[in-house]
Amino acid sequence: MAMSEKITVLTGGVGGAKLALGLANLQPPPQLAFIVNTGDDFWHLGLKICPDIDTLIYTLSGAVDPRQGWGIADDSAHVLDSLKRRYAFKAWFKLGDQDLAMHLLRTQAMREQVSLTDFTSSIARRLGIEAAILPMCDAEIPTTILTREHGELSFQDYFVKQRWQPAIQQIRYNVDKEARLSEVVREALTSADMILIAPSNPWLSIAPILAVPGLLDLLESLSVPKVAISPLVGGDAVKGPTAKIMREMGLEVSARAVARSYAGVIDGFVDDLRNPVFQLDWLRATRRDTLMTSLERKVALARDALDWARGWRA
Amino acid sequence: MAMSEKITVLTGGVGGAKLALGLANLQPPPQLAFIVNTGDDFWHLGLKICPDIDTLIYTLSGAVDPRQGWGIADDSAHVLDSLKRRYAFKAWFKLGDQDLAMHLLRTQAMREQVSLTDFTSSIARRLGIEAAILPMCDAEIPTTILTREHGELSFQDYFVKQRWQPAIQQIRYNVDKEARLSEVVREALTSADMILIAPSNPWLSIAPILAVPGLLDLLESLSVPKVAISPLVGGDAVKGPTAKIMREMGLEVSARAVARSYAGVIDGFVDDLRNPVFQLDWLRATRRDTLMTSLERKVALARDALDWARGWRA
Repeated sequence: MAMSEKITVLTGGVGGAKLALGLANLQPPPQLAFIVNTGDDFWHLGLKICPDIDTLIYTLSGAVDPRQGWGIADDSAHVLDSLKRRYAFKAWFKLGDQDLAMHLLRTQAMREQVSLTDFTSSIARRLGIEAAILPMCDAEIPTTILTREHGELSFQDYFVKQRWQPAIQQIRYNVDKEARLSEVVREALTSADMILIAPSNPWLSIAPILAVPGLLDLLESLSVPKVAISPLVGGDAVKGPTAKIMREMGLEVSARAVARSYAGVIDGFVDDLRNPVFQLDWLRATRRDTLMTSLERKVALARDALDWARGWRA
Repeated sequence: MAMSEKITVLTGGVGGAKLALGLANLQPPPQLAFIVNTGDDFWHLGLKICPDIDTLIYTLSGAVDPRQGWGIADDSAHVLDSLKRRYAFKAWFKLGDQDLAMHLLRTQAMREQVSLTDFTSSIARRLGIEAAILPMCDAEIPTTILTREHGELSFQDYFVKQRWQPAIQQIRYNVDKEARLSEVVREALTSADMILIAPSNPWLSIAPILAVPGLLDLLESLSVPKVAISPLVGGDAVKGPTAKIMREMGLEVSARAVARSYAGVIDGFVDDLRNPVFQLDWLRATRRDTLMTSLERKVALARDALDWARGWRA
């Protein structure tokens, strides 16, 4: 089974990309498919930008800026500087020059009616990525954030411009009538030997994927191990607003609350050693060091999670 | 009259921009409008690119690369390098990083249904340009080049990719049914005290302007001085394929043949001292050094041309 084992992962950006890199470096190599959140996607300066897809592609192709975990290492910003300096452009979203190459190619493809799925697959192959990088949906399903201070904000307005500071009243996954589960996403789920949920933000990164019409029903119908990895370490997010959002939504800030939010979706949970122990009668759980601060630790976590889930299915 | 004198110029790129800079530096300053060729405009990498407008804007705002006469001085090319290196993009058209800022802003405006006229006017104002920079038309009127070797080529394919080497059989100005003379272009012509034709390529830069529906009739109806400046100096083009195209079209390579191609459009001609003397009974002509190798010479040519035409109208 190991040689052809198929692992399909639901993932957002930076945190998910770390796990993805661990999985991609496993020996023997599993057959990997990543179903990536596109709820953060937006149009900016006439460009179609897919932050989570880009983070995953840059990470798996080795181009990523290792300090920030997103963008391209040693990128310059001459275009953005020129926009600011010469045209007084309000630059609240970072656009590196090398990063712009991706946005330009993608935007051109979108304008030529190439699907996001086809564009992503072709660009990932060109960069030598063997895993399948699958946008959760070809239709746009923009996440918006309802706040008391500012009303309804587009995702990047909330996340980047406002630095996720406004308190969230509600998160909206704006599913269009046209949105359909793509065939490649369906196939990646139905053919998987195991499904993982990356340690990404459950409400901003994973929930948008689960909002794709038909995806949740399909997931629930599958009998393979479905394992989430805790996005909380020692009761807080490694990075980003997971804990803050949980507080604002009136939830207990705990791995248990995260696991409960995945009820019906997962049957296994890899918790972090630093979190308080909990039990849920419908959930198998294991405890590991989930901090992925080096390639070795990324690979170790990926290997341990897979070994563990294989074991309890055996 | 001098304080409010209105000069309207039909112009292409590099050569016309030199005259434009001379005119813009006249004292007292005339009220200037430039009707700019957009037959070279094209979509590339999903971007709307207007080479002649950009050359004029960069020249008048002082950003231009003085060596090439187009593009921005000291521009880098990190985006293009990334496209080539990472994505094997075939980069036959130079796209500087600072130049890309303009293309991005314009493309966004076009996608938002802003007219090229409005976008150009707004960006020129932002860059501190007092002259009106008027695209010849808001509709696209792409010039195409019929060649024996390659069949019909888009303009930039002929001009940049093939470096204007293929022999021209025919030049086509592809006027769409929707193309209309814009109100600002009409106004710039009807209100002008004098109309100049810049020393741009008559067939590739000026003829596309004259092909805008209604423009030629309007020009012919105006009784103000209409003066062309010779694009040939010493029997050859200062830069570019003017002489080569004349040969390929079976024309004598001479200022006289250029002037005759403007029959019905102009009534005055500023010839270069180095060209053979000629006479046409319908045309007033004067002879000057038209080489604009310094700002002083640009200003001198502009001043001399205006003084001369004012004189013979008095």
